[in-house]
Amino acid sequence: MSSRRLLIIGGAAGPGLLGRFVALAGGPAARIVVIATASSEPDLAASSFGEAFTALGAGEVQALSISTRAEANAEQPLLRRATGVFFTGGEQERITRVIGGTRTDSLLHELTGAVIAGTSAGAAAMSGTMIAEGDAPGITRASVRTGPGLEFLPGVLIDQHFAERGRVNRLLSAVALYPHELGLGIDEDTAILTDGDRFEVLGSGAVTVVDAGAATDIRVPAQGPITLTGARIHVLAAGHTFHLAGRRPVADASTAEREAA
Amino acid sequence: MSSRRLLIIGGAAGPGLLGRFVALAGGPAARIVVIATASSEPDLAASSFGEAFTALGAGEVQALSISTRAEANAEQPLLRRATGVFFTGGEQERITRVIGGTRTDSLLHELTGAVIAGTSAGAAAMSGTMIAEGDAPGITRASVRTGPGLEFLPGVLIDQHFAERGRVNRLLSAVALYPHELGLGIDEDTAILTDGDRFEVLGSGAVTVVDAGAATDIRVPAQGPITLTGARIHVLAAGHTFHLAGRRPVADASTAEREAA
Repeated sequence: MSSRRLLIIGGAAGPGLLGRFVALAGGPAARIVVIATASSEPDLAASSFGEAFTALGAGEVQALSISTRAEANAEQPLLRRATGVFFTGGEQERITRVIGGTRTDSLLHELTGAVIAGTSAGAAAMSGTMIAEGDAPGITRASVRTGPGLEFLPGVLIDQHFAERGRVNRLLSAVALYPHELGLGIDEDTAILTDGDRFEVLGSGAVTVVDAGAATDIRVPAQGPITLTGARIHVLAAGHTFHLAGRRPVADASTAEREAA
Repeated sequence: MSSRRLLIIGGAAGPGLLGRFVALAGGPAARIVVIATASSEPDLAASSFGEAFTALGAGEVQALSISTRAEANAEQPLLRRATGVFFTGGEQERITRVIGGTRTDSLLHELTGAVIAGTSAGAAAMSGTMIAEGDAPGITRASVRTGPGLEFLPGVLIDQHFAERGRVNRLLSAVALYPHELGLGIDEDTAILTDGDRFEVLGSGAVTVVDAGAATDIRVPAQGPITLTGARIHVLAAGHTFHLAGRRPVADASTAEREAA
């Protein structure tokens, strides 16, 4: 288990979450790198987040422009000394298509002392299996399309803009297809902050965890509705902690103290 | 336990479900009464369903026009001899406001030999606690507004147009507020057919059952996201049976036979 921490944001982060990222990266001592590869306007996205991080007290903020695999395979001295890396939103498959398997990808996995953050598409790309798209109504095989993510956080499927875009159906479809993966649906202005195999919920919304691990019956026909019985669902507001390996919420301190007493 | 059966449809019923209703009501021997109180154009709604039922082989179909409480408190000879009653869609609170507590309401509860069906708003009004409205994103106290339904099926909260309108959030909000009630989300062209304390799923979509009965932690702040951990969720396609009192899917026959062998 590394000391690297991940801050995975469901989109539309307010100053509270962005300020938390700056603080985790070291505040005035932070060396933050913004990667806007997912964005259709990367310069604009990078400068917008850069200004926000500077206004929130970050010591140093630089954009790392990576739009081709050649650029992703270059030496990345900026990244090597970063204390915080931030992936903007856009289209998640641009991230995996351009960065996946490159020297930048390897380097990012070696940055054990830094905090790596991503919002929206930048959040989706962090999971082992990435939700690429899917907006069909219903819980069906066609409701979701997945692909491999950058695997910063294995064992999970991350969806974002979760409540705002009504994405429970596609997350349920995804865990029915891959019940070994935990489905994490992160609302806007909401994030998970990982610490080893746990995460804490931050921000103004909720994180919905869908767990098909204990499901008693799963049937995924080629067409038509999926059957999924006995799945578990947890809706976690800020302050809650979830144990990923144990697939369960961690009781809050007051409960634990009561139980110990 | 009465022999009365309920056919509760999530809206947009195709000929398969409407034909099943006609057959349950007796086919050529059926005496069907259509109640379009929920509709803003009740005459149009009643004649449209009436024509469909006749085309599907119903012996006798009549509209019962009830738009005031005075009408709902009149003698209802038509209803007294009905073998099937069908509530159209529209606005569910019109049903409870006009019919709730009247002679018609009492009579409907005494029709033990008939099948009572409802679609969309007509489905919502059948539950003990009715989801009146709610379209806010997120899982919050404000995401759903409930009121008492006509209580043909107590112990449940029924939502409809479920996948099509992305209503998992409001159903989760409702069961967090009332964890003793089972949340049933019924897709369009999909229905539950009750038989005592069980129901079977019919139609082309799925029924999603949300059960907060076993939840380990529920917190509903006045504002902001609800916390709900340890809830269970079942997505049931056609052919599945659910045991309401036991709050669990009934294993299919083939599984039961394997277990018995």
